Amino acid sequence: MEINQDTHYMKQAIAEARKAYDLGEVPVGAVVVCNGRIIARCHNLTETLNDVTAHAEMQAITAAASHIGGKYLNDCTLYVSVEPCPMCAGAIGWAQLGRLVYGADDEKRGYRRLAPDVLHPKTEVLSGVCAEEAAELMKSFFKGKR
Amino acid sequence: MEINQDTHYMKQAIAEARKAYDLGEVPVGAVVVCNGRIIARCHNLTETLNDVTAHAEMQAITAAASHIGGKYLNDCTLYVSVEPCPMCAGAIGWAQLGRLVYGADDEKRGYRRLAPDVLHPKTEVLSGVCAEEAAELMKSFFKGKR
Repeated sequence: MEINQDTHYMKQAIAEARKAYDLGEVPVGAVVVCNGRIIARCHNLTETLNDVTAHAEMQAITAAASHIGGKYLNDCTLYVSVEPCPMCAGAIGWAQLGRLVYGADDEKRGYRRLAPDVLHPKTEVLSGVCAEEAAELMKSFFKGKR
Repeated sequence: MEINQDTHYMKQAIAEARKAYDLGEVPVGAVVVCNGRIIARCHNLTETLNDVTAHAEMQAITAAASHIGGKYLNDCTLYVSVEPCPMCAGAIGWAQLGRLVYGADDEKRGYRRLAPDVLHPKTEVLSGVCAEEAAELMKSFFKGKR
């Protein structure tokens, strides 16, 4: 059975999220794909780095831009396990990302509720890819914290 | 004539903005003050670093957290020459900043229009400090770019 390409890359993002989980970090992971190749793999490191800006997506945008040698990511797809927050969506907007694919919704802190117009108008968005797996990881993490 | 403390620190943020201007960067500068001391001074470096996340405020938040040794900035005031964008306001929200003071409004790309609920509810906000000077610097920069 052939696996869908978006599912394939999302599984990689979720693998990154698991690394965050194992570090005691909120389990969010991201990869950036450009021309069929993964050019950045990152996971949330806010606790490890003592830095609220160290979300998976922020690191992935910085790493991808560094790899490309330019700050615009029009030809890239960012896969992230959970819906980006307004900070990350703002960065995605500035980067003029070509395509955003995310897994689980974040009803409370996601950009769709708090900053719905912050993405670049040309950025395609697909949500819900491997959503259950990504959400389960988050649920398990916060359950363990209580 | 005594200079107001907020004006004093905003002048420092504008001095940072002038450094950005001289580098050909959009002229936005920021300082973070904690217990009466400046613990971070930064200016926009998006072009120099090829990184959309390198706004003055983002760097200032990272630097201040590193200085403090913790990611929350409840006891800090961030002075920034121009109204933060949603990305920066999102970071300010995650950091639970104590107080935000900014200069010029950014009607088009500012957080008040695009992400009005993204700051932490306890963050005090003061705007309009040295607004004319900060706005003039921006105007002059974009005029030079045309």
